[in-house]
Amino acid sequence: MSVAAPHPATPGTLYLVPTPLDHGCDTPAALDAALPRHTLETAARLTHWVTENAKSTRAFLKRVDALTPLAQPLQALHLAELPRAAHKQGDHVGHGGSGRNGGNGRGSGSARFDARALLAPALAGHDMGLASEAGMPAVADPGSSIVRAAHDAGVPVAPLVGPVSLLLALAASGLNGQHFAFVGYLPQDAAARAQRIRALEALALKTGQTQLFIETPYRNAALLYALVHTLQPGTRLAVSQGLTLAGGHTRSLRVADWRKLPLETALGRAPAVFALGA
Amino acid sequence: MSVAAPHPATPGTLYLVPTPLDHGCDTPAALDAALPRHTLETAARLTHWVTENAKSTRAFLKRVDALTPLAQPLQALHLAELPRAAHKQGDHVGHGGSGRNGGNGRGSGSARFDARALLAPALAGHDMGLASEAGMPAVADPGSSIVRAAHDAGVPVAPLVGPVSLLLALAASGLNGQHFAFVGYLPQDAAARAQRIRALEALALKTGQTQLFIETPYRNAALLYALVHTLQPGTRLAVSQGLTLAGGHTRSLRVADWRKLPLETALGRAPAVFALGA
Repeated sequence: MSVAAPHPATPGTLYLVPTPLDHGCDTPAALDAALPRHTLETAARLTHWVTENAKSTRAFLKRVDALTPLAQPLQALHLAELPRAAHKQGDHVGHGGSGRNGGNGRGSGSARFDARALLAPALAGHDMGLASEAGMPAVADPGSSIVRAAHDAGVPVAPLVGPVSLLLALAASGLNGQHFAFVGYLPQDAAARAQRIRALEALALKTGQTQLFIETPYRNAALLYALVHTLQPGTRLAVSQGLTLAGGHTRSLRVADWRKLPLETALGRAPAVFALGA
Repeated sequence: MSVAAPHPATPGTLYLVPTPLDHGCDTPAALDAALPRHTLETAARLTHWVTENAKSTRAFLKRVDALTPLAQPLQALHLAELPRAAHKQGDHVGHGGSGRNGGNGRGSGSARFDARALLAPALAGHDMGLASEAGMPAVADPGSSIVRAAHDAGVPVAPLVGPVSLLLALAASGLNGQHFAFVGYLPQDAAARAQRIRALEALALKTGQTQLFIETPYRNAALLYALVHTLQPGTRLAVSQGLTLAGGHTRSLRVADWRKLPLETALGRAPAVFALGA
C-alpha cells in the first residue's frame, strides 16, 4: 500500500487493532494464535498509530513483522501516545465510573485532551491504527475518546478481530451471556468492597444480568477471598486467567464449592476476569 | 491428533469455537479474515460438536477444511444439536431476561434439558467443540447451559478467539468501554419500547454505563426511528452493521445529528448492534 499523501478530501480509516493478551508474560504466545490473518496484514501496512504505550506497540509490530513484513521499517513509523489523562480512569470524558478514581456523575462533555489532533494523519488521508497494551482498544482500555473524535471528524472506524479477555471470560463462565454488564474495578476499601459485592449479587440474582469485573493482579487473592466470603453459597462465581495463553483457565463454581478450595493458591498473579451470577 | 478413545479418567476439553459473522450473507468473508490460525486448526481437529444448528456448522467446517484439512471427513463427524429449548430465549436456565419471551425472575435452577448428556464424548476423553450460527457461542447466543454443565462435570472449557459482534460494535462506538451492559432485545410494543429506551438512557446518563442491545433485522428501521425520536438530542447513539464484512460500518452520532438523516435508508437488513450513552 502506498504511504504517499493521498487526496486530503478522503480521510483514512481508523483501525482498532487488538493485541495479544500476553503483555508482561514471560512466554509470549504465537501471534497468529490470537490474531486472524486480516488483522496481521492490516497492522503490517499501517504507518500511523495512536497507542496507549509506544514501546509496547513497537514490540507488537516487531512480532507482526516476523510473520507479515511491515510496509515501512519500524523506525519510520509514526507512533503517537495517548496522553496520560487518557490512562488513569479511562479516557471516556466525564465517565470514570469504572475507574479506580472515577466518579459516577455525568461529565461536562468537554475533552480533557485534544483527541482530534491525534487524528491529523487520518484527516490527511492516511489509514491509522489504534492499539492498547493488550486486547481490544477502547474496551476496558483507553481509546474511546479517539474513536469518538474520529466519528465526529468523519473518519471511518473499523474494529479488527482479536482477543477480548472480558468476552472470552464471559463465554467460558457458563453464566448468562444474553444479559451482562462489565463494571470495571470494585472499591479497595474492605467495607465498601463488601457492600459493592452484595449490590452486584442482588442485581444479578434479581435481573439475571451477569456481572463482570477485574482487579489489579496483585489484589486477585484478596478479591477472591472477599467474594467467596461475602456472596451467598448458591451464587455462581467464575474466574478466568491467562485465556488464549498456555496454562490459561476458567474455574466456575457455586460459592459453596469455592469455600472448599485453598483460595490463597487458587489464582496466580496474571490479570483475571471475575464474573458472578445465578 | 488421535481420535481413538483416550483414557476415560481424563476428560476432553470443551472448546468454544467462534464462527464468522457472515451467516446468511450473500458474499461470505474469507475465513482467515475473521479467525486466527489456532482457532482454524482446533476446529479442524475436533470430531465431536454441540451446535446451535448442525447444517450451519457443517457449512462452516467445509470452509475450514478448504484452509486446514479436517482430521476426519465431514460425514464422519459427530454433531449434536442444542435442543430447541435452548434457542428460544437463550438457554441460561431461568434467565430469559434478555430474550423475547423471557421473564426477569430468578429461575428454579433446574435444567430444562440434559446438558450433561451432550457432553458424553468429552467425559469419554474426546475434545469437543461448541458453536453457534455466528460469532461466539454463549455470548448473545445459546450455549451457556453446556458450558456450565462442563464446569460441573470437570470438563475444561477453552474459549477460542474470533469475532464477537457486540464487542466490535462497542469498541467502534466511541462510547464508554470501561463500563457497559448488554441488555438483549427491547420490547416490541411501541409504548413499552419507548419506556425502556428512556429507562436505558436515564441509566446511561446517570452512571456512564453504555447500553448495548440488538434487534431482529427486519425491525432495525423501526427501532432506529423509535430511538432517534425518543432519546434526548445530546445523547450519543451508535449503530454497527456487518462488522468484519465488506461494507461493514459503524455510525456514531448525537441524536440531534441522527435527526438530520434519512432514517428509512440508514440501515440495511443485516443484523445490527445498537449502543447508547453520553
